[in-house]
Amino acid sequence: MHIVIIGAGGMIGGKLARALAARGHLRGRDIGRMTLADMVAPAPVAGVETAQVTGDIADPAVVERMIPPDTDVIFHLAAVVSGEAEADLDVGLAGNLLGTINVVQRARALGSCPVLVHSSSMAVYGGDTPDPITDHASLNPQTSYGAQKAMGEFLITDFSRRGLIDGRAFRLPTISVRPGKANKAASSFMSSIIREPLNGQEAVCPVDADFRHYYLSPRQVVANLLRGAEVGADAFGANRAVQMPGRILSVGELVAAMTAVAGPEPARLIRWERQPEVNRIVEGWRWDLRPEKGYGMGLRDDASFEDNVRFYLEDDLPR
Amino acid sequence: MHIVIIGAGGMIGGKLARALAARGHLRGRDIGRMTLADMVAPAPVAGVETAQVTGDIADPAVVERMIPPDTDVIFHLAAVVSGEAEADLDVGLAGNLLGTINVVQRARALGSCPVLVHSSSMAVYGGDTPDPITDHASLNPQTSYGAQKAMGEFLITDFSRRGLIDGRAFRLPTISVRPGKANKAASSFMSSIIREPLNGQEAVCPVDADFRHYYLSPRQVVANLLRGAEVGADAFGANRAVQMPGRILSVGELVAAMTAVAGPEPARLIRWERQPEVNRIVEGWRWDLRPEKGYGMGLRDDASFEDNVRFYLEDDLPR
Repeated sequence: MHIVIIGAGGMIGGKLARALAARGHLRGRDIGRMTLADMVAPAPVAGVETAQVTGDIADPAVVERMIPPDTDVIFHLAAVVSGEAEADLDVGLAGNLLGTINVVQRARALGSCPVLVHSSSMAVYGGDTPDPITDHASLNPQTSYGAQKAMGEFLITDFSRRGLIDGRAFRLPTISVRPGKANKAASSFMSSIIREPLNGQEAVCPVDADFRHYYLSPRQVVANLLRGAEVGADAFGANRAVQMPGRILSVGELVAAMTAVAGPEPARLIRWERQPEVNRIVEGWRWDLRPEKGYGMGLRDDASFEDNVRFYLEDDLPR
Repeated sequence: MHIVIIGAGGMIGGKLARALAARGHLRGRDIGRMTLADMVAPAPVAGVETAQVTGDIADPAVVERMIPPDTDVIFHLAAVVSGEAEADLDVGLAGNLLGTINVVQRARALGSCPVLVHSSSMAVYGGDTPDPITDHASLNPQTSYGAQKAMGEFLITDFSRRGLIDGRAFRLPTISVRPGKANKAASSFMSSIIREPLNGQEAVCPVDADFRHYYLSPRQVVANLLRGAEVGADAFGANRAVQMPGRILSVGELVAAMTAVAGPEPARLIRWERQPEVNRIVEGWRWDLRPEKGYGMGLRDDASFEDNVRFYLEDDLPR
């Protein structure tokens, strides 16, 4: 089978490509070929014949090259991230809305009803919707990124209902511990307060220890995307958009888990400096999520945040 | 002030244009000019200087002509209807999704944050969402029309959140008594079983008398669109998409109201012939709607279906 990963140059896309190459099969068939697509050439993976395609998914001709006629499964993980989509509405619309339209239309054009796994986001929630957020909560995104992701979900459900694609959109929790460097995203601290101390560096925590949010490790995100590609279409019912399970945790619990795994030293590298502007943004984010449908189709959260810490040490700690 | 009606050639658009011309003011200002836009030239209205613009809103250049720089309020009522959007996915996407993107982008380009009133639809509900449908129910459209309307809602809320437009999207109930001729829509009987008998003609009712649905008269739709244009933006909170109130009524209640207003003769012109294919479609439609937010901003339903019958006789009965 031929698998396409759009956004293979991203953190999750890269991990997914390596996981697919390592397992060698999906949906009961051997993986014969993978196409890794992104704006810049993604790293190749060992063990499977791979092609690389670069370009902007806002261009339908690029998407046609990214998704060859014999494609069986598409993972569409490419996105203009939250901060950038908020800073430039048209860039976000081009990447997240038009890009997703192009991917879905190309998948339809194959004529083979390919599986399309897409990364949506918890950012579709917010605003007027009361907590807790169940599978039947209204979407009311308060960022352009979230609005564009919501629109993509409706497109995927409708194309799937019509039998043109076999789409599956998963709303990813906030990923922690995310490897790499801190960035300007308001959520950056949710990984950096663990990652930097584990790397022996200082980190600033801009919220109080009782700030709660909804988390999943990169390793479990990848496992859930694989499960999401394999589960039967019947599991989705009439809505192809599903919340991916995560864990509700306070920042204090994140730090305690780090201490349980790595000892007391890393936590001493955290400077607690409350930043009002960060709090103003992240306090509007939802964390009280009840993803019954996702659990029901075999998606899982991490057993504890100690696992998230261990996975970072095993998978991502800089050598 | 300058008002643009896109879809002014439609039944609601035409009634709205005449109502605006008759009242002469909106949002506390005199109406100096109206632009009536549609695929074919809409009928002019008396009493206000009007321009007509024709074309397809899937073309941004057409939309630029439809919405001149001095526009204050836009009513965007144009749509590819449910049956056509289901029959041809690309036609629906062009008219309902790309068309709405073009209208919203043009409204943004004015730079004056114009009011944009848009007709969404109850077709955004369905599928997995449990009844009753509150203001916080998840959208799960089971038609391409409904999916495209849902996407437009998110676009309008996001552009409004960013302060680019002052958008207001109203989910219209099923309109009855709709004037004109029966068509191939599955909902056609919801008007024709009243309209045709009042016109002295036979009509077929394909569902049982206890079939329930959610209705509003054309006259009250127009009144609600006017209220929706005038109400303060604060009334919308974080979500610019609002269910317009209607009344939950059985077909038996519709017919009884007709008899109460027009005597026993018209009801004798109804042939009750249950049609399984019609029932299969309309039984999936939602009617148990609780539009608290709409009521809260002063939108109203009809006092009784007897009013719907009277409004038809007063406004629309062929002479």
